[in-house]
Amino acid sequence: MKKFFEDIQISFEGKDSINPLAFKYYNKDEVILGKKMEDHLRFAVAFWHTMNVQGRDMFGEETMTRPWNSISDPIERAKAKIDGIFEFCEKLSVKFFCFHDRDISPEGATLRETNKNLDIVIDYIKEKYKSSNVRLLWGTANLFNNKRFLHGASTTSNADVFAYSAAQVKKALEVTKELNGQNYVFWGGREGYETLLNTNFKLEQENLARFLHMAVDYAEKIGFKGQFLIEPKPMEPTKHQYDYDAANAYAFLLKNNLQDKFKLNLEVNHATLSGHTFEHEIRYARTNGILGSLDANQGDLFLGWDTDQFPTNAYITTLAMYEVLKGGGINPGGLNFDAKLRRPSIDLEDLFIGHIAGMDTFALGLKAAAKLLEEGLLEKFVEEKYSSFDSGIGKSIVEGKENFDSLEKYIIDKGEIINKSGKQEYLETLVTRAIVKAL
Amino acid sequence: MKKFFEDIQISFEGKDSINPLAFKYYNKDEVILGKKMEDHLRFAVAFWHTMNVQGRDMFGEETMTRPWNSISDPIERAKAKIDGIFEFCEKLSVKFFCFHDRDISPEGATLRETNKNLDIVIDYIKEKYKSSNVRLLWGTANLFNNKRFLHGASTTSNADVFAYSAAQVKKALEVTKELNGQNYVFWGGREGYETLLNTNFKLEQENLARFLHMAVDYAEKIGFKGQFLIEPKPMEPTKHQYDYDAANAYAFLLKNNLQDKFKLNLEVNHATLSGHTFEHEIRYARTNGILGSLDANQGDLFLGWDTDQFPTNAYITTLAMYEVLKGGGINPGGLNFDAKLRRPSIDLEDLFIGHIAGMDTFALGLKAAAKLLEEGLLEKFVEEKYSSFDSGIGKSIVEGKENFDSLEKYIIDKGEIINKSGKQEYLETLVTRAIVKAL
Amino acid sequence: MKKFFEDIQISFEGKDSINPLAFKYYNKDEVILGKKMEDHLRFAVAFWHTMNVQGRDMFGEETMTRPWNSISDPIERAKAKIDGIFEFCEKLSVKFFCFHDRDISPEGATLRETNKNLDIVIDYIKEKYKSSNVRLLWGTANLFNNKRFLHGASTTSNADVFAYSAAQVKKALEVTKELNGQNYVFWGGREGYETLLNTNFKLEQENLARFLHMAVDYAEKIGFKGQFLIEPKPMEPTKHQYDYDAANAYAFLLKNNLQDKFKLNLEVNHATLSGHTFEHEIRYARTNGILGSLDANQGDLFLGWDTDQFPTNAYITTLAMYEVLKGGGINPGGLNFDAKLRRPSIDLEDLFIGHIAGMDTFALGLKAAAKLLEEGLLEKFVEEKYSSFDSGIGKSIVEGKENFDSLEKYIIDKGEIINKSGKQEYLETLVTRAIVKAL
Amino acid sequence: MKKFFEDIQISFEGKDSINPLAFKYYNKDEVILGKKMEDHLRFAVAFWHTMNVQGRDMFGEETMTRPWNSISDPIERAKAKIDGIFEFCEKLSVKFFCFHDRDISPEGATLRETNKNLDIVIDYIKEKYKSSNVRLLWGTANLFNNKRFLHGASTTSNADVFAYSAAQVKKALEVTKELNGQNYVFWGGREGYETLLNTNFKLEQENLARFLHMAVDYAEKIGFKGQFLIEPKPMEPTKHQYDYDAANAYAFLLKNNLQDKFKLNLEVNHATLSGHTFEHEIRYARTNGILGSLDANQGDLFLGWDTDQFPTNAYITTLAMYEVLKGGGINPGGLNFDAKLRRPSIDLEDLFIGHIAGMDTFALGLKAAAKLLEEGLLEKFVEEKYSSFDSGIGKSIVEGKENFDSLEKYIIDKGEIINKSGKQEYLETLVTRAIVKAL
Repeated sequence: MKKFFEDIQISFEGKDSINPLAFKYYNKDEVILGKKMEDHLRFAVAFWHTMNVQGRDMFGEETMTRPWNSISDPIERAKAKIDGIFEFCEKLSVKFFCFHDRDISPEGATLRETNKNLDIVIDYIKEKYKSSNVRLLWGTANLFNNKRFLHGASTTSNADVFAYSAAQVKKALEVTKELNGQNYVFWGGREGYETLLNTNFKLEQENLARFLHMAVDYAEKIGFKGQFLIEPKPMEPTKHQYDYDAANAYAFLLKNNLQDKFKLNLEVNHATLSGHTFEHEIRYARTNGILGSLDANQGDLFLGWDTDQFPTNAYITTLAMYEVLKGGGINPGGLNFDAKLRRPSIDLEDLFIGHIAGMDTFALGLKAAAKLLEEGLLEKFVEEKYSSFDSGIGKSIVEGKENFDSLEKYIIDKGEIINKSGKQEYLETLVTRAIVKAL
Repeated sequence: MKKFFEDIQISFEGKDSINPLAFKYYNKDEVILGKKMEDHLRFAVAFWHTMNVQGRDMFGEETMTRPWNSISDPIERAKAKIDGIFEFCEKLSVKFFCFHDRDISPEGATLRETNKNLDIVIDYIKEKYKSSNVRLLWGTANLFNNKRFLHGASTTSNADVFAYSAAQVKKALEVTKELNGQNYVFWGGREGYETLLNTNFKLEQENLARFLHMAVDYAEKIGFKGQFLIEPKPMEPTKHQYDYDAANAYAFLLKNNLQDKFKLNLEVNHATLSGHTFEHEIRYARTNGILGSLDANQGDLFLGWDTDQFPTNAYITTLAMYEVLKGGGINPGGLNFDAKLRRPSIDLEDLFIGHIAGMDTFALGLKAAAKLLEEGLLEKFVEEKYSSFDSGIGKSIVEGKENFDSLEKYIIDKGEIINKSGKQEYLETLVTRAIVKAL
Repeated sequence: MKKFFEDIQISFEGKDSINPLAFKYYNKDEVILGKKMEDHLRFAVAFWHTMNVQGRDMFGEETMTRPWNSISDPIERAKAKIDGIFEFCEKLSVKFFCFHDRDISPEGATLRETNKNLDIVIDYIKEKYKSSNVRLLWGTANLFNNKRFLHGASTTSNADVFAYSAAQVKKALEVTKELNGQNYVFWGGREGYETLLNTNFKLEQENLARFLHMAVDYAEKIGFKGQFLIEPKPMEPTKHQYDYDAANAYAFLLKNNLQDKFKLNLEVNHATLSGHTFEHEIRYARTNGILGSLDANQGDLFLGWDTDQFPTNAYITTLAMYEVLKGGGINPGGLNFDAKLRRPSIDLEDLFIGHIAGMDTFALGLKAAAKLLEEGLLEKFVEEKYSSFDSGIGKSIVEGKENFDSLEKYIIDKGEIINKSGKQEYLETLVTRAIVKAL
Repeated sequence: MKKFFEDIQISFEGKDSINPLAFKYYNKDEVILGKKMEDHLRFAVAFWHTMNVQGRDMFGEETMTRPWNSISDPIERAKAKIDGIFEFCEKLSVKFFCFHDRDISPEGATLRETNKNLDIVIDYIKEKYKSSNVRLLWGTANLFNNKRFLHGASTTSNADVFAYSAAQVKKALEVTKELNGQNYVFWGGREGYETLLNTNFKLEQENLARFLHMAVDYAEKIGFKGQFLIEPKPMEPTKHQYDYDAANAYAFLLKNNLQDKFKLNLEVNHATLSGHTFEHEIRYARTNGILGSLDANQGDLFLGWDTDQFPTNAYITTLAMYEVLKGGGINPGGLNFDAKLRRPSIDLEDLFIGHIAGMDTFALGLKAAAKLLEEGLLEKFVEEKYSSFDSGIGKSIVEGKENFDSLEKYIIDKGEIINKSGKQEYLETLVTRAIVKAL
């Protein structure tokens, strides 16, 4: 068993600490609204960003050197990275990790060989389980990196690629089940189009539905009880992806009678690329009963691509956790750090620093959101604003007793209607207040 | 009866003309793919932009002086504007117009008085019908200008405003029916939120559904047979509107079991503000059976608000008409010019020039789209690209005969999968070719 | 003398207060880094947003009713609004206000008449000066609302409009001087173009330079010593404005030898519309010695127009005040609230609440920025990161002693160069830390 | 000498052709406005996109297999690619190519070794020159791919990296001179910042100026007479680049007294990412005398990154060539195809198809622009619109004879000023007309 982070020690030092390698706000056992922080937040480390990414971008090579990559044998390297992710999560006291199938083991010449490689690593993880409490939050299949997916996976124009994708997801479901993964994610990285000019949109949408139904059937067949999640993203890598945003994904699910089988995995940066705030996407999902899990990161609103930065903005995390708390929590989903280090953050310790930054910012957001709920100023304001629907004509409308005729009779001779102020300026100060007073 | 445009004569002069007041490409009786241009395009003039708008923007007063506004009596002015819209449409050989209730007649102290004013003008329009072939494409209610709607109309926090909106739409449906309007549009100008902090999202969504069901019931009650249309727009005037884009509106319809009662009215500039091309929104709608009507304009992709420019870009109109032709036409919907003159285009004749620009650009687009279809190069390319789904495993997938097990068996020992080139660069040249060769 | 806000009492209550009408963080006499808060921040109230704006947007009428607008005589109403702005500033303990010439007095049939109206109001303000400490931070001329400016003011295609603009600015300079205004602002609301197709770009740029030189000459002639400020904005109302951003304005100043006569007035929302963060624009300006004054507001990064919201985001104000403190302060400029209430914030008291929100958020930002500077963690990090330029080859480069030959000799046989980590993730946590620990 | 494209034959077939491998509009010897097409357009092939890029994106591996990459020896492969680029250009009748130093030869362990590799390839190119007319339009240095540049090149925080960059540009200038390159380009790929929090903005700007002065000095020393070009881009790879747009680069040049030594290389997709149309950037540059060369591609305005697509939109090329013709041509610059195939365009022939698409679209744009100029409708309109500056007070303003006093006298008692209509809607139809009638 390899050790890579022996020099690193992480502890909770509290809000006065300036130690980059200490938690300032995240105190996992601290109880907030009757539940431990770690149970509210259910953090997960993303295998790909932590163990695989090394700073490459479209204009430049890797900037980071990771010790596990000095191991030349692919399977040994794969195992070393499993050692690494467990050691990393344990140091951080994070209970979960997430992976794509191809993150953790190398491809072979055929799918059969690829699956064999995967099995070796899965067995190794099962060994790790015996001595560690780190577990799989969700698994998924990488259906976007290999060139075979250049026209999509389940929405490809090539039937063999559809078949390949099906077989790959079959295996990914099996191994997720084997590892007691609590969720399984579908992110349609290449499920979309580059140009409508060469796209049979209808067939692709129908094939996507067929594919998801097959996945549902197969999960049932093997007894996989984890939650199925669709992860919306509007574009990148393709010009336009089918699961553009929460509403788009929901329309697809409803149309294809899949709404009871899937929930959503929402990501900050995907939300913002689609023109929505993160809190909007969560509100939309929880209102429609499809909030499943969250990808914790943040984008740069001045940049038009997925920057996947570690979350450091407390407004985003406060408003997100406010929605999560209002929605009754995120379990069996979690907060997966789909976040990568900035390209110049090249030190090995930066992996810890980035995660600590993110965990602390979400912990701060959780405490601020709890403060908002405890004081109840927002709730009270909203209640009063809508109070006309609690009695009289409003109550009658909500109860379905009115129609256009009756409402016309009610209003036709009334004079000016008086509205209440929305007081957005004041309400916004309450969010800052909650952050400033959270600790 | 007032005449405002007696000096203006419009004719078709053909592609060599540089006369701003002549059609170059739109020849209404010319037959394209077996149908007259005017029946393909079904143009409509928007009452509000043509008769009411005068160049005001957020930073400056009106720049345009319209002769009908020198009439001081409100009802007489309203009638003069009816004269004007009929004269305008006739000069342009446009068969349809569209209006909001408040565009055509003034508000009174109560809704009852407002309705009386409206009735006078509706009677006047019915008189005009006797001597003109110009007809109403669609009616709608203005539920956004008056301050009573500051928190929304059917999604207001004030039950009286909900009632008022219901009564107003009731009347708007009645007059649309009276005028044989072929469609009725719901654009949710204030149906959205400024901030989630003061918004009961769930109640607002439920009330919106209640409202639309009431509208359906009332239309049934009075025997209105026109098509109901939702018009998506992502933002503006509110920070975030509920009918964000086609998919968002479709999700709402499906969830609330309204999908058989409503189709969509799609606008170029609303599409682009929501991050989609116009052709995407049309493709999405026709694939899902909800394409209803189109608002013809264009936005400026460098600006983040609804500029509502007259369409002058032939790529946009070609790709739009290609989708329309593939979808079997737009009837009983049409192409409504939801377009306004640039603020410095202050001459009265500019109203004609703008519409001619738009009609010509759509006529060119129609001819280019027809050329694309006649030559069939795009269709042939797409057919070949997806041919693997016409036989063998692909056919079997499409027929629903496969599952994850069978597909794994099929693919697990296969080697490299060969894909075809997407040839986007070539396909794009075909669009330019169609435009250049359209005439 | 009219009183409009007699029921309103504003005080500092401190960070625990939830009173919307009390300051939580802004304690004007509190000393931060050796200077009183009010001297750091130099707040100003914008006359137009406070006294004139009433909630109108492009899709809806006014929602707010202001008591001063019930006065029917235009000059009496103008005076009442002057009473109002002084009372408002005094209640808030704000020492400055800003205005456009046309905000404060009505236009007449000719410029001579308009100037007479203006003189009456200026005399009235001078009377107010005797009993109040409220003063003019900056004056400016409104060269965008009247329809005569539809093609621009100094960049118009109409020579008479150029002349009019010159005469109007002449008068605006005179009255700003009369009131001891400390600055004079040029915001080119219509100085830009709608389309290049009808624009003589070169002539317009040259005329803009001529105009600014005339202004400089005239200020010298009348002995106006205030600071001249250009206010960049990329678009809106025009499609593309000439003073697009700080760099664009600076290029113009340099080219036309105006760089010593003008500094910049930077606005948060204008910065973000041009693709830059506010802190970028300030850093750019102070690095180039052209930081003059700031417009305090905030935009919505999901919306593409100038929303002019009251600033409530402490990250923006912290990073802005950090730049201001590093730059040695903003005097003789200030922080003008170019911010308007959201359309549903209709209560008269919301004017106070909005300003308190903004002042508190800037006060918090000031304290957080001071904390950052006092602890010096950012400064120390930057110093170390660039330390290679403090000695050896780096020092020699900075001192101008090296050239391509000498540098080639130095490096040509060296092996790998080792870089330091940029540690962005850690540095970002320091900003949150400063906010959380500011109070 | 290797041959890679022996099966490919390219010819001019004219506008009716549907052969993807034939020119439809680009007929190199056809004379337009007295000059051959090829002399107007001066096309260049970008070495990197054509010989090196193979479809990799941030989410997926290479999709394209190029025959030259089967050669294992790095120097032999480099030579083969030189054969390839010459063969490719000759087949297309393109006279120029462009490269970064690292595109054409591999790096060694030290800069000395790297330079040796480069010399071998440069000698090989000089051999090719003897039997080919293909020449170097511009050379440049790749200062962004290698990890040493992670904090920038001349704007790095590491003095050794500054030295390395200097030495690398020194060599790149030498080889560009050796090959009679007509231009040398500075694109600041990493010259910018990821976060202001760790950036010494002032030092970086000063070092950039020092660097460019060194380059000027060295070019003078070695007698390099080619044109120096700055290539603006707003972001990507860095969060914010220093040469954000044309105006930003111009400000920098002016401030550092470099404005006579550098012109600009403007790219379509960089322009649009910075919020400007391509025609704006060209107009700005030619108005200020700094138009140097163009990078021909197009972006997707719905995507926020540099997609570098082959240009297929005739509006963009028409408006660009209109500016180029008005500016007197682009010589000694040219039109470099900084464009890459879409990831699914995997056939070797797609390289030709993409370039033909781009060349044809620019040829069409050239012909349309020439038509616009020949007919002169735009020019005449603009002339009339600004005619008030040709005589009277306008002429006097332009001649510098007026001031605020004289202009006030002129205008103070005048009544309403009458403006002309801007007629944007009509002018836009002229552009479509020129495209439709260009052939």
